[in-house]
Amino acid sequence: MPILNKEHISTWFKHLQDDICGQMEDADGQGRFREDQWDRPGGGGGRSRVISGQLIEKGGVNFSAVHGELSEKAGKALGTGAGSFFATGVSIVLHPHNPMVPIIHMNVRYFEMNDTIWWFGGGIDLTPHYIVPSDAAWFHQSLKEVCDQHHPKYYSEFKPWADRYFYLPHRQESRGVGGIFFDRLKAEEGISKEDRWSFVKDVGKAFAPIYRHLLEHNSALSFEEEHKKWQSLRRGRYVEFNLVWDRGTRFGLETNGRTESILMSMPPMANWVYGYQARPNSAEEKTLEWLQAKEVDWISMA
Amino acid sequence: MPILNKEHISTWFKHLQDDICGQMEDADGQGRFREDQWDRPGGGGGRSRVISGQLIEKGGVNFSAVHGELSEKAGKALGTGAGSFFATGVSIVLHPHNPMVPIIHMNVRYFEMNDTIWWFGGGIDLTPHYIVPSDAAWFHQSLKEVCDQHHPKYYSEFKPWADRYFYLPHRQESRGVGGIFFDRLKAEEGISKEDRWSFVKDVGKAFAPIYRHLLEHNSALSFEEEHKKWQSLRRGRYVEFNLVWDRGTRFGLETNGRTESILMSMPPMANWVYGYQARPNSAEEKTLEWLQAKEVDWISMA
Repeated sequence: MPILNKEHISTWFKHLQDDICGQMEDADGQGRFREDQWDRPGGGGGRSRVISGQLIEKGGVNFSAVHGELSEKAGKALGTGAGSFFATGVSIVLHPHNPMVPIIHMNVRYFEMNDTIWWFGGGIDLTPHYIVPSDAAWFHQSLKEVCDQHHPKYYSEFKPWADRYFYLPHRQESRGVGGIFFDRLKAEEGISKEDRWSFVKDVGKAFAPIYRHLLEHNSALSFEEEHKKWQSLRRGRYVEFNLVWDRGTRFGLETNGRTESILMSMPPMANWVYGYQARPNSAEEKTLEWLQAKEVDWISMA
Repeated sequence: MPILNKEHISTWFKHLQDDICGQMEDADGQGRFREDQWDRPGGGGGRSRVISGQLIEKGGVNFSAVHGELSEKAGKALGTGAGSFFATGVSIVLHPHNPMVPIIHMNVRYFEMNDTIWWFGGGIDLTPHYIVPSDAAWFHQSLKEVCDQHHPKYYSEFKPWADRYFYLPHRQESRGVGGIFFDRLKAEEGISKEDRWSFVKDVGKAFAPIYRHLLEHNSALSFEEEHKKWQSLRRGRYVEFNLVWDRGTRFGLETNGRTESILMSMPPMANWVYGYQARPNSAEEKTLEWLQAKEVDWISMA
């Protein structure tokens, strides 16, 4: 068995990026990722890859492995204190052309400090422009299966965590149908570092087949101009979440991260309409109701 | 002379909103403002007015006069401590159809606490999609004339304040060509409350003629699809500034303000492109160079 150190983890993440990019190109059928390799002035760097295809309108798959000294202030914010840090991860947001296909986000990451503190974090969440409960159920069931293979408590802890995290207080709306979210997973009674890593790897590997399925099934659905309009409004909400509430995005922008890589998550063509009101009994209104409902047990909707 | 109390100030601001809306409808020639009156659960309320016309694609002119109790936490953030507050103001953002017409923002406001502490704040700043130095010079000259009528130091203090405030650190870009910004203007040696108020009123009154001029002159300029594309990218930057850096917007969203009124500033149809590169020697590249230049003395460009 390989030694579970930061080199091993970041190398595996790099391969995950390769694998996901290959699968997304396959699924898209036309788009090809282009890559920017970049160095971080303080240490380390990454590979940002973006695609603009026939099914995926704008997507980014980012790998990074950075290291350096954490300032007192940043260390305080993280609760670790100052010191030498290492952070590596893969992070993805894909915006489809077809409004019947959901936006998806995935992130897996590893953090280490002074060679003593370490943790894993990550998650997958789905943002349908139109919520289809059976699709949400299928998505959650897929995530639950990954979780259940590792710990009977994972899904029941990480699903509500996503509900809390992917939430827009100023809209009193969820970003989408949630998924799983976890952070600062350390070793604990009965769960080793190897166990955590094995779970994080499976989350990473689950992403591509899940989104392939959604892309392949939903891209065949037809749509009209009004669906595109709604999509651009929902993209506006996605922007609001990422810029106002997402801790990763804000931390990156405030600490001089690589802006283009951080904002790969931004959608194409987002719109804002003052005081938007959905037509009564429309699909848009139904979606808003789902977004305002809290802690929905999607799996029971199957 | 009327007594300079909060009722007087908020009534004047209300009339300013009326006057500006009338002038903007005139200038647009087609759009009409629609109004939402709203109450704030904690006390007070406002009138939010939005327009979608033939020259102004999306615009909002908001008046509010709110009062209530400031929590310890909010009072600490403001540096006033807890207590009874009153705040009133007018705030405007207009997004034109024609990319040759700049986006404009104006805000005038008054804050009072426990009937003892008070201050004025506000500003006007211009965000051209394409920077034309002679237009920027004219705009700054107009603001300088307002400032100079009140204090020889105002323009030289409030112009750099706008440069610092309307800045996107994560892009190392200014939002536009700046303007004037001021906050917490209290009485001081040789400057009474009446003097401050007289200045703030003149800033408010300066807005409509300035934007009418820009609308009327620049709306006649022709544009192509590529100019619209650039406009949507610049609108994306406008969103980034407002959601990530603008203190007023963030304070409002984090303290449960009226979201639709706070986000009236959001543009229609904003776009994000990964790693955008302007064509060498293009008008877009020239604008980016101006945005990256710091503390430009626009008046000297006349």
